Amino acid sequence: MEVQLKETERIDDLQLKGLKLIQDTNGFCFGIDAVLLANFAKVKKGAKVVDLGTGTGIVPILIAGKSQASKILGVEIQEEVYEMATRSVKLNDLEERVEIVNSDIKEIDKILEVNGYHVVTSNPPYMHIDGIKNPNDKKAISRHELKCNLEDVIRAASRLTMPRGKFFMIHRPIRLVDILTLGRKYNMEPKQIQFIHPRAGKAPNLVLVEFMKDGRPELKILDPLYVYGEDGNYTEELKAIYANEDIGEK
Amino acid sequence: MEVQLKETERIDDLQLKGLKLIQDTNGFCFGIDAVLLANFAKVKKGAKVVDLGTGTGIVPILIAGKSQASKILGVEIQEEVYEMATRSVKLNDLEERVEIVNSDIKEIDKILEVNGYHVVTSNPPYMHIDGIKNPNDKKAISRHELKCNLEDVIRAASRLTMPRGKFFMIHRPIRLVDILTLGRKYNMEPKQIQFIHPRAGKAPNLVLVEFMKDGRPELKILDPLYVYGEDGNYTEELKAIYANEDIGEK
Repeated sequence: MEVQLKETERIDDLQLKGLKLIQDTNGFCFGIDAVLLANFAKVKKGAKVVDLGTGTGIVPILIAGKSQASKILGVEIQEEVYEMATRSVKLNDLEERVEIVNSDIKEIDKILEVNGYHVVTSNPPYMHIDGIKNPNDKKAISRHELKCNLEDVIRAASRLTMPRGKFFMIHRPIRLVDILTLGRKYNMEPKQIQFIHPRAGKAPNLVLVEFMKDGRPELKILDPLYVYGEDGNYTEELKAIYANEDIGEK
Repeated sequence: MEVQLKETERIDDLQLKGLKLIQDTNGFCFGIDAVLLANFAKVKKGAKVVDLGTGTGIVPILIAGKSQASKILGVEIQEEVYEMATRSVKLNDLEERVEIVNSDIKEIDKILEVNGYHVVTSNPPYMHIDGIKNPNDKKAISRHELKCNLEDVIRAASRLTMPRGKFFMIHRPIRLVDILTLGRKYNMEPKQIQFIHPRAGKAPNLVLVEFMKDGRPELKILDPLYVYGEDGNYTEELKAIYANEDIGEK
């Protein structure tokens, strides 16, 4: 499928089954977070999946490539970004399985089926809104809690996930207390945590959390993931994630 | 000061300023947890400190040796253990600064001053009470939540700590969601976390948490602590803690 590109857009090769992604070089481009999240999410064959705050559509497109999910929705509030993500879906001929929805996650249960999804994922804005100069800036909306905050994300995930269904999120460790207490507040029990450290011996700068709707309290902290080895190169584990060896039906 | 030993008791040298500890070889003997907790606790000159569930008195005695705290109380529910800890205090001629109190922490605010302490510490029982054969067994009371559970400990810490005062606890990562949510419930904001890993690359099996009474939400995860290096020996960091280089006024 051929699609039109705007002047500041480019097409990136995702190095997975020929998948490609349109990104706006003036906008927020995907990072390691999205790749780690797509890898961390356990998606079974036939699953219905929603990604909250999908941006470029990177997470739904990676999950489509790596799983046998039947339907993957990506929800994006910014119309321009939604439209670009929709073109990426077309570019990959994924229209039958992936759909981008232009909506505010705060009103998501007016649009999507409550308790209707096996898996919800989110790589939400990490930063507080202090000191934002231009609140309409596309990058700022992707990075800062301008249009939704952490509680909005966890509440929406809880509304959409079916009982015993899973919610996978990546965020900053500085927010861990909020993440875990809000999870419990909305009946999303944190079941597994993996910390991502720049290297062994250093504090983590990212955290992956798996919640289970109505899950029993018992947390497992997984072995840590180190991004760089002592030689300054990516660790074998991280290379394997980028090589997509580790994903699919689990 | 000479003290009487019972038949199953022995005196251990704490390798710090000549401090010694009486332990019952049939009872619960202190482990790395107590040493890590005493190291982790920041105790300023003149501080008033309480250790909840003090057992042998190891934490108050280590803190007495390593800080200039003015008064350190250890609260222990088991009379026989309380009595033994009191003899350890005498053995070290610490009666002016350290006192062991025989009390139930669930009723602590009838005995100690509410909001009266700069620092509270606790190395509480880690395990649920499932499958306990002898609930009067001394070791079982030290290990399992028979006489108090995690919520009792955090509630008591909150009652005793003065505003902006600190509570330092060591526990198992499996309970992290409970630890953080209960902290917030009782206005004890988790401010710093350090995970203790058996070795680099492995999941943590202990977690140190610093709470601040009425603190502002913002969590710092510290660099991890590894117990063993790749050579199978204690890491330099752990040796330094055992050598008490790292403690005192901070």
